[in-house]
Amino acid sequence: MGNKVSIGLLGLGVVGSGVIKLIKNHQEELVHQLGCSIEVKSVLVRNVDKVRDVDLNQTFLTTDPADILQDPAIDVIIEVMGGIDEAYQYTLEAFRTKKHVVSANKDLIALHGTELEETARQHKCDFYYEASVAGGIPILRGITDGLASDRIQKVMGIVNGTTNYILTKMTNDGMTYEEALKEAQELGFAEADPTADVEGLDAARKMAILGRLAFSTDVALSEVEVNGIKDLELADLQYGEKFGYTMKLIGFAQCKNQQIEVSVQPTFLSNDHPLAGVKNEYNAVYVYGDAVGETMFYGPGAGSLPTATAIVSDLVTVIKNMRLGISGNASLEPRITTTLRNSEQRSGQYYLRIHVKDRIGAFSEISTLFNDLSISFKRILQTPMKQNGLAEIILITHQTSLATFENALNQLHELDVVKQIKSYYKVEGDAPDELAGTAKTLS
Amino acid sequence: MGNKVSIGLLGLGVVGSGVIKLIKNHQEELVHQLGCSIEVKSVLVRNVDKVRDVDLNQTFLTTDPADILQDPAIDVIIEVMGGIDEAYQYTLEAFRTKKHVVSANKDLIALHGTELEETARQHKCDFYYEASVAGGIPILRGITDGLASDRIQKVMGIVNGTTNYILTKMTNDGMTYEEALKEAQELGFAEADPTADVEGLDAARKMAILGRLAFSTDVALSEVEVNGIKDLELADLQYGEKFGYTMKLIGFAQCKNQQIEVSVQPTFLSNDHPLAGVKNEYNAVYVYGDAVGETMFYGPGAGSLPTATAIVSDLVTVIKNMRLGISGNASLEPRITTTLRNSEQRSGQYYLRIHVKDRIGAFSEISTLFNDLSISFKRILQTPMKQNGLAEIILITHQTSLATFENALNQLHELDVVKQIKSYYKVEGDAPDELAGTAKTLS
Repeated sequence: MGNKVSIGLLGLGVVGSGVIKLIKNHQEELVHQLGCSIEVKSVLVRNVDKVRDVDLNQTFLTTDPADILQDPAIDVIIEVMGGIDEAYQYTLEAFRTKKHVVSANKDLIALHGTELEETARQHKCDFYYEASVAGGIPILRGITDGLASDRIQKVMGIVNGTTNYILTKMTNDGMTYEEALKEAQELGFAEADPTADVEGLDAARKMAILGRLAFSTDVALSEVEVNGIKDLELADLQYGEKFGYTMKLIGFAQCKNQQIEVSVQPTFLSNDHPLAGVKNEYNAVYVYGDAVGETMFYGPGAGSLPTATAIVSDLVTVIKNMRLGISGNASLEPRITTTLRNSEQRSGQYYLRIHVKDRIGAFSEISTLFNDLSISFKRILQTPMKQNGLAEIILITHQTSLATFENALNQLHELDVVKQIKSYYKVEGDAPDELAGTAKTLS
Repeated sequence: MGNKVSIGLLGLGVVGSGVIKLIKNHQEELVHQLGCSIEVKSVLVRNVDKVRDVDLNQTFLTTDPADILQDPAIDVIIEVMGGIDEAYQYTLEAFRTKKHVVSANKDLIALHGTELEETARQHKCDFYYEASVAGGIPILRGITDGLASDRIQKVMGIVNGTTNYILTKMTNDGMTYEEALKEAQELGFAEADPTADVEGLDAARKMAILGRLAFSTDVALSEVEVNGIKDLELADLQYGEKFGYTMKLIGFAQCKNQQIEVSVQPTFLSNDHPLAGVKNEYNAVYVYGDAVGETMFYGPGAGSLPTATAIVSDLVTVIKNMRLGISGNASLEPRITTTLRNSEQRSGQYYLRIHVKDRIGAFSEISTLFNDLSISFKRILQTPMKQNGLAEIILITHQTSLATFENALNQLHELDVVKQIKSYYKVEGDAPDELAGTAKTLS
């Protein structure tokens, strides 16, 4: 291996360019740690003639993946091309030709992570992908190394910067969803087609990866229940705020008795929850461990250099492993097999907003319905609506099973007094009592 | 090595008991990761007859350190006895007899960390001490592994739970320092003699360790400038709050051009700083990297099981290294030598509260003084004090050098109009403008 390690990049977009810059700018620190230098030998691009904002010899660029995958001088592949099919083929081929892979590709790893890790192990290759979840935050190491001795019970994450930016603007500046999305697009925090972000798919991929590592089990992407933020109304965020809750798009993963629940959904967090203060485009992952209790890892979830930090830190580990002769030992086979919790096994507190006919006994009918199902309330707020002879009722339940809550929703639909179920969301944590007091004065 | 690794504990207090419980409770997860089991073979205690809340065969206890340090069957020492002199001797002896050491001893490592790491490397032994800083938060790995590729510019930490609890109670519940300390003692968050905590010494030790690892340089404990929270007045916290700042005891470490500054001091953080929301006994470490930008690691800074999590996660790493045959490669020699910044090289924003004679031209004299030193203000608040013919002035400066600010303090002392300099504190970040507006209406 000598005094340098040669690497090949698949892709030279925003993140790939960041990797090149970081390796160049921090060469001195990297050499100190590794005892050798890192040489970027080849880079796979679609168009070698494109003008790029990166200092790289043009002759290193190629459009032929074989120039990298079949080059015996290249030890490590950095996969920053994105997409699934080609990336999957190239990653497998890299392992077959004994190259280690560092990947930032959450789509690929959420779908094929378990299989790719197994293939890597078979070929004694390393496969690291810190950058695939929460950009610059070293959360995968936090889980696999830092909390290695603990039994993780729950992971909650704000793992999509676009939606967190939109929700922050709605909450803090009173923007509607559409206004906040437009601003996010103008500032480059949302793409022209924001579907994967606002519908929660991007977050779902990250939660599948986090769940797999946190619980040492296989989590299929299809097992993640996903609800996005497209239909959120400002009114709900403002009611939540009055009660002491902040709306966030929360990725949730829990494991108990070999049963897992993984979801992405808009969730009201009590304002004292560590995740409630995570603003704008920032990401954070909250990990609850049996022994350690509450921890949280916060930082930038995207961006050229932050994401490159995660990739090059993985590369440092890969090269250290090469020099110590211990490649291929990083990952473990899943420890347990799990089943999905059904709605009777899932529980939570729920926020509910309904419109009812504003007549005597209306609330009594509703409270009887909940009472019969043994669902009790933590907060109640009823406000007459001026225009239409209706009243708006906001309820926050105590802990109940999802099945029972869904049962309540079905029965509410049947009540003549209920005009419309406007919205319902999961609630995490207890808002302080004085805030509840504030909210009550509105009714 | 076979199918088990034998360890010896030095000390069986709160943390040591947590280690025993964790190894027992999470045996299944540990075996899955290590491919072997962990046996606690001997434990050094002062009194073998003491009744303990831990499930351990009494015959494993010994009062003779040689029973552990000279036992060739023991591979790893867990040092949870605290103190410096004995711990230092035992740790050195462990390395000489080829035992790896996991330590939670911040006092020892702040003083002798560089030397102990060197000795460990000489003997091809591992030496890990994640538990020595911020209890259950895997911050040392975050810095050395997770952000390995980055150049860390600044570390700011809330690394002492006792003082953070006291400050939270003062801020949120309007308690005085004495009331908050008393409550912290009653709840077990402060010791009967709280000196090391409230005077900032405990935090200083952790900052010496963090600074050393973050900047890959030697940081002597004596180089850490320390100010505690004993003399904080509630009035200052409340003024800060009106301006949009929260008072925290902040450990600060910065490195630029091979010049370092390491301090522990009460600091006003703007409310949108990630550390400002860290409450009660919780700890958090904020790391600013050249490439990654802002990250923060949050969690419990103390406690039996949280601290044990850090120790046993280190133990997992040590055992993996043993099995892979790569012990003794964990630490690096310092990369750079640094000098301490002097007061002209140090800069900041500063909060200042002074009492002046309430007469015409009083503020003008003061503002002329600052103007002559080219110090400009971000916030000004003057309030007449009813009883004594004085006025209270609060100033928050823009960025200025510490030398210039100290010069201003000296000159203020000389002014006849200045009755007393009540307090001054460092300020980090920009509070939002609307809060400044609120504050101004008070004057």
